[in-house]
Amino acid sequence: MSLLVVGSIAYDSVITPFGEVDDALGGSAVHFSAASSMFTETRIVGVVGEDYNLSDLDFLKKRGADLSGIVVEEGKTFRWKGRYHKNMNIRDTLSTELNVFASFKPQIPDTFKDSQYLFLANIHPELQLQVLEQVDKPKLTALDTMNFWIDDFRSSLEKVLAKVDMIILNDSEIMDFTDEQNLVTAAKKITEMGPDIVIIKKGEHGSILFHDNEFFILPAFLLESVVDPTGAGDSFAGGFMGYIAKHDKIDSKTLKRAMAYGTCTAAFLCEDFGMNSLMELSMEKLEERLKSYKQKFLLP
Amino acid sequence: MSLLVVGSIAYDSVITPFGEVDDALGGSAVHFSAASSMFTETRIVGVVGEDYNLSDLDFLKKRGADLSGIVVEEGKTFRWKGRYHKNMNIRDTLSTELNVFASFKPQIPDTFKDSQYLFLANIHPELQLQVLEQVDKPKLTALDTMNFWIDDFRSSLEKVLAKVDMIILNDSEIMDFTDEQNLVTAAKKITEMGPDIVIIKKGEHGSILFHDNEFFILPAFLLESVVDPTGAGDSFAGGFMGYIAKHDKIDSKTLKRAMAYGTCTAAFLCEDFGMNSLMELSMEKLEERLKSYKQKFLLP
Repeated sequence: MSLLVVGSIAYDSVITPFGEVDDALGGSAVHFSAASSMFTETRIVGVVGEDYNLSDLDFLKKRGADLSGIVVEEGKTFRWKGRYHKNMNIRDTLSTELNVFASFKPQIPDTFKDSQYLFLANIHPELQLQVLEQVDKPKLTALDTMNFWIDDFRSSLEKVLAKVDMIILNDSEIMDFTDEQNLVTAAKKITEMGPDIVIIKKGEHGSILFHDNEFFILPAFLLESVVDPTGAGDSFAGGFMGYIAKHDKIDSKTLKRAMAYGTCTAAFLCEDFGMNSLMELSMEKLEERLKSYKQKFLLP
Repeated sequence: MSLLVVGSIAYDSVITPFGEVDDALGGSAVHFSAASSMFTETRIVGVVGEDYNLSDLDFLKKRGADLSGIVVEEGKTFRWKGRYHKNMNIRDTLSTELNVFASFKPQIPDTFKDSQYLFLANIHPELQLQVLEQVDKPKLTALDTMNFWIDDFRSSLEKVLAKVDMIILNDSEIMDFTDEQNLVTAAKKITEMGPDIVIIKKGEHGSILFHDNEFFILPAFLLESVVDPTGAGDSFAGGFMGYIAKHDKIDSKTLKRAMAYGTCTAAFLCEDFGMNSLMELSMEKLEERLKSYKQKFLLP
């Protein structure tokens, strides 16, 4: 089924203990789509500057993605530069140039309005609301957010939360949002605000699904070599939502399986800079990874 | 089979966001035994002061534990006092009174020397070496350690590591010890120093087993209420070693199952102060917990 993502499109420059890359493909919408397009027709809404080389996204087109919602604006593309520490859970942002992204006002093309699944990547909650007003009636609407919106735009965020089915955020964000250190209590508080489904991302420690008063926990794929984790959360979300849209079911079994696929697409992403490993990904490689992943915590 | 543990016996005073307790049963040997005695005959070697009420350990005796290796010395028992933050992963030590533990020189009773399984809890590595010299030939010898020994007594620790089959330590400790941030690489480095089996504890994020060039990962049991995590690592080790000693096998299947039991005994421990929940534990409750635990990450 059709899956719409609205988010950023960027060039990322990243320095890690293992090397560095300049102007790699980045942005939440691209990280998401690089994973979700493995599973289902993905529609992208975002903005780039005149300097963006749209042919870099041909790999998405080849997987059936629809890029007609990407607007080219006068000016430069959003750029982010960051440096990871030896402990790659810690990174410093060296520079953020919002450029054309600063005035991003998502316009959903008419052909996208009937999208069955919708992912609102991490953008201003007011923009997320505007997107919701433009689409018909997706079967599942999910949103991502971050501390900046939680701390400074809480009322907007609460408004959009009341209208979505699912939220995906990391452990420090949910603690911040709910002022609760216990993740069980925190997730319950979130469901009282709207979403039935809460996914808590814990980076290298895996992820937790809260749905239907039940918890489901998955460890991350333990990697011997993490080259660049930038965008891992979005590629997790892409694998997760892509799997759900493909199977067009929102039951507990599908959600759990989707978590496993999201874990694997995120693991691939981390193994190389930018979008390199997701660009080369095949369904065969993904299934193989899933098989080896499952064995890592299959209790005999 | 017989399982010998050598470690501390203490009175813990703990302040958490949920309450406080004075002079609760504590110490690595007691936390360990409270879990291991659920599974197998546990023999304890440790030291207490004249103020220690040995009848507090009757619950261990009732489970077949042998306390004849606990020596009463003139003076006071080891006391630790700590306060947990709202984020219970962070705690401050308010006071440490080593008392009789300061001059602990483990003497293994003759009747304990034939122990089949041995756990060297977190004590000075030179003392761990002295214990190894006193026992016959255990089928599996495991040790725990901490940053203090890693940083300041590395050569002693390396000596004892070369002689044991297994090490259990937490993620920050293994990174510190190996100067490696990647846990896969870190675990491999440790195996080159001696142990075939490496267990990395990640607290609320679960644990990782490295054995036979293979990784096995388990999430922690997600608790809605963590009352007091003091000793969780030792009760994990106790559940783990107890299960192995009971089944008297050291194959991959047994190790993996032992991890799950260790996870569950640690979860019980955290639900109340001191030894309260482990004292009341029954095999029925434990099996029930294991069943519900497994379902939390059983991929459909």
